[in-house]
Amino acid sequence: MSSYWSPLVHSLDPYTPGEQPRVDGLIKLNTNENPYPPAPGVAQLLQQPATAERLRLYPDPNSQSLKDALTSNLGLKPGQVFVGNGSDDVLAMVFMGLLKQARPILFPDITYSFYPVYCQLFGVEFQNIPLADDFSLDLDAYSSDNGGIIFANPNAPTGLALTLGQIETLLQRNTESVVVVDEAYVDFGAESAVALIDRYPNLLVVQTLSKSRSLAGMRLGFAAGQAHLIDALNRVKNSFNPYPIDRIAEAAGCAAVQDTGYFEACCQQIMATREATAETLAGLGFEVLPSKTNFLFAKPPSGLEAAKLAERLRRDNVLIRYFNKPRIDAYVRISIGTDADMAVLLACVERYVNEPSAG
Amino acid sequence: MSSYWSPLVHSLDPYTPGEQPRVDGLIKLNTNENPYPPAPGVAQLLQQPATAERLRLYPDPNSQSLKDALTSNLGLKPGQVFVGNGSDDVLAMVFMGLLKQARPILFPDITYSFYPVYCQLFGVEFQNIPLADDFSLDLDAYSSDNGGIIFANPNAPTGLALTLGQIETLLQRNTESVVVVDEAYVDFGAESAVALIDRYPNLLVVQTLSKSRSLAGMRLGFAAGQAHLIDALNRVKNSFNPYPIDRIAEAAGCAAVQDTGYFEACCQQIMATREATAETLAGLGFEVLPSKTNFLFAKPPSGLEAAKLAERLRRDNVLIRYFNKPRIDAYVRISIGTDADMAVLLACVERYVNEPSAG
Repeated sequence: MSSYWSPLVHSLDPYTPGEQPRVDGLIKLNTNENPYPPAPGVAQLLQQPATAERLRLYPDPNSQSLKDALTSNLGLKPGQVFVGNGSDDVLAMVFMGLLKQARPILFPDITYSFYPVYCQLFGVEFQNIPLADDFSLDLDAYSSDNGGIIFANPNAPTGLALTLGQIETLLQRNTESVVVVDEAYVDFGAESAVALIDRYPNLLVVQTLSKSRSLAGMRLGFAAGQAHLIDALNRVKNSFNPYPIDRIAEAAGCAAVQDTGYFEACCQQIMATREATAETLAGLGFEVLPSKTNFLFAKPPSGLEAAKLAERLRRDNVLIRYFNKPRIDAYVRISIGTDADMAVLLACVERYVNEPSAG
Repeated sequence: MSSYWSPLVHSLDPYTPGEQPRVDGLIKLNTNENPYPPAPGVAQLLQQPATAERLRLYPDPNSQSLKDALTSNLGLKPGQVFVGNGSDDVLAMVFMGLLKQARPILFPDITYSFYPVYCQLFGVEFQNIPLADDFSLDLDAYSSDNGGIIFANPNAPTGLALTLGQIETLLQRNTESVVVVDEAYVDFGAESAVALIDRYPNLLVVQTLSKSRSLAGMRLGFAAGQAHLIDALNRVKNSFNPYPIDRIAEAAGCAAVQDTGYFEACCQQIMATREATAETLAGLGFEVLPSKTNFLFAKPPSGLEAAKLAERLRRDNVLIRYFNKPRIDAYVRISIGTDADMAVLLACVERYVNEPSAG
């Protein structure tokens, strides 16, 4: 606390990211990182002498080559893509540029926990809409007059996804406000709303290159929507930080987006590992939600408390995520690693389940 | 324009960055980039296979290794440095976290043109304080009740610098508000206010790795000040984008900051080129302001209008910057390149000056 702070700062309750320990040898299944390296083209561009030399020059403030790669990959038109320094940066622009309205915005009570943090920072009123008891999104509850709607699809940390038909219902019922679909995990088996962009002027889709493109360390996210929505994001970005994407990030993003074969193989492998892991956990008595993401949200069998499970795994050098929050505190979130990572996890879990003193 | 925009977006007048043409073969003296590549350690880290592989993992949200390198390099204490995605990103956090106050903030009428843009975006009231006729900062004019003071030192685009004694006068007269010294260009011959940090709880210094460290393409800036000011910036950053610095940027920043020999040789060379260029321009009839930066702010001799000079140089593939703004529209800003770059520039300029039809 300091008398020099802006009054705003006193009211903030900042986001707590998943732990990023600076220790080697851990199996990190706590922040939904991809267990496989980025596409080989990323390593290749780092080897080129010009890559380091040209760092003396500013990047393209419009990141045009990355936008072109994404536009082509997603089948969109020029002007329908915005890029940012990770999808958190993109979401910040979305809150300032589209969701800061006179009426409150709506989002689920259980979803990405950063949404209320943005609301605090930018002075956006919001209303939480409870998920149903089975953690599904209650479409009918999103019909009140609102300044916008935002939700993660698939949702985090539940892993559950809406269908495109359900998303269309929301878009059609809320034509006066922007509906933001945050698709951080969509490439692991859900349907992307990008296909709906040309039909809905109120649809904005946000994605990231952190998960399915293995570039969490590079900080790249994007938004896709009709040009009039993208224009708002550009106006805010050019009033905030005109050069958010560095030269190497832009080139790495292009290499990752263009290598569709590598991308698809990676996602397929992760989905296969996920299904096998889910089956084993179910066999051990876990209640596992059907996931369309690169993580599983699961309730341990009685006798093995979620918080204790996370704590015990940590002692075995396996990190998973536990949220000490109402409604979800009986669950753990487990990121999907390699088959070898999951074998270590499952061996530990099996040991705990079979110990009479477990929990 | 769109009915979906936040009301805020309609009022924005975004910053216009210097042109970044995607054409090779130009001599770019328009955006104050360093003509020399970053320290050799940057190229070395890009060559390491782990650099690409580990991009699958999130970076350290605290960028601790970069903070440690800066703290050590600047002779500061732990907790006295904040890092961001370029100094524009750092400045955005400063406006939100420290300068958004009930009273208006003060800054010069001629300075970095992004300051009023932040004020619009974040709803910060401001008052412009005119520079004196010789473009010097009028210290006595900064004595009104204010919510903060921000100025570039050396100033841009004039290149003029205050002494530490003058900065202390401002700090002592404004103990109730934060004084932000934006030192983007300080390493080219001015005195850094970092030396004053332990004595002034209201001092925040902002610097960038874009100019003197040759990393414009990497997007790295930082703020230095007592821990209570840095805390405010961290709280805003963790409510905005918890991972602003990517893995490669953090490692590149460390390599650049740690190589003090390369840094000093680079700065010395640029200052030598600057002085030689200034002398030649003066000999050609230019009025050249004494510069403590990596650029010169100069008024062409009568008969050669500033706007026309920039336009003609462009046709000769040499880019410089011209600001079509009151008080400075008779000047051009010329970044310092290599001696070879400046020889081309000066040959062109000499040709124009000696043509009877010039202007």
